[in-house]
Amino acid sequence: MAKGSDSIAQLTAAFAKMPGIGVRTAERLAYYVQSLSTEDARALVEAIRTVKTRAVVCSQCFNISETDPCPICSGRGRDRSTLCAVERVQDLAVIESSGSYRGLYHVLGGRIAPLEGVYPEDLTIRQLVERARGEEVKEVIIATNPDTEGDSTAHYVMDQLAPVDVEVSVLARGIPAGGRLEHTAQGTLAGALSGRRSVKAKGNGT
Amino acid sequence: MAKGSDSIAQLTAAFAKMPGIGVRTAERLAYYVQSLSTEDARALVEAIRTVKTRAVVCSQCFNISETDPCPICSGRGRDRSTLCAVERVQDLAVIESSGSYRGLYHVLGGRIAPLEGVYPEDLTIRQLVERARGEEVKEVIIATNPDTEGDSTAHYVMDQLAPVDVEVSVLARGIPAGGRLEHTAQGTLAGALSGRRSVKAKGNGT
Repeated sequence: MAKGSDSIAQLTAAFAKMPGIGVRTAERLAYYVQSLSTEDARALVEAIRTVKTRAVVCSQCFNISETDPCPICSGRGRDRSTLCAVERVQDLAVIESSGSYRGLYHVLGGRIAPLEGVYPEDLTIRQLVERARGEEVKEVIIATNPDTEGDSTAHYVMDQLAPVDVEVSVLARGIPAGGRLEHTAQGTLAGALSGRRSVKAKGNGT
Repeated sequence: MAKGSDSIAQLTAAFAKMPGIGVRTAERLAYYVQSLSTEDARALVEAIRTVKTRAVVCSQCFNISETDPCPICSGRGRDRSTLCAVERVQDLAVIESSGSYRGLYHVLGGRIAPLEGVYPEDLTIRQLVERARGEEVKEVIIATNPDTEGDSTAHYVMDQLAPVDVEVSVLARGIPAGGRLEHTAQGTLAGALSGRRSVKAKGNGT
């Protein structure tokens, strides 16, 4: 871009720092910003500023919202005996929108990944253990992602919770609804087999 | 995100409008912005503003730079007899960085794609024809992308340039350097065959 625009190059560099955005995409985004109307560009800047000034991390569960504590932690009608530990706020949002969980959450802030420089002390595991010691809490559901780093993070959290008088559970592994056996990965099949449940009606056999 | 952050949702929506950015990516970017230091967030906002205030479209070739005319149009030592018409500024940058072209450019502003609502009058084809009528101009190289829309755009431009007293050329099609025949698409092979050049040394045969 020797003969191009310095400002485009700078914005490209800023976008390229974002997670999952390569240089080509960043460049396309920078040109997109240039093509925006003054009004739309101002709206984008305002949205960024609002996030920085208004969105806060919940001091209890590390969710991100406009209040501290967040609407979930301060919500009436939530089951305060259960904490669901997730890697990221996005995971919390997905579980929340499923409508099948009424307890509280705990956002770990990522997963343990030493190769990427993420160690247990970088996550909110200590705070989770502290919360789990609370009178009200009866169960911690570890809902990390079902992959290598997620699993090892789950195991680390389990170890930390071992001395605490609290139930600890993980999400069920199995074949996703709507999935097909022939397209199911071996690890998923293995999990579905080892986690198989009896469906034999009681008193029907011997 | 009912129990989440409105400001995150708004920034997600703003990012999701960007080309090639889906909702999931947009959400990840919004959380990334939230996690930025105040300083880094300010730098991002500043970079966006700078692009909007400083980057301008060249009134001659439609390149984007900090000056009008752009450094290429106002550059000494450029061959002013040749115009290379490209779809986007990024294409101009790629050709420029190849170091193998010393003429001027003309950014069309996209390609004709009626299904996406892009018609000839949305591009700078009229302005290209006008420039091609200029005394100095001897050749227009049409360097649209080698795909269906790029080709039909090239044909449309050719038709428009037909009445103008100027040479019109297109980039050579063929096997890319470092490519392998077995991995070459049929259309590319067809182009390489029909565009084959004689390498028989003169006076060596009959």
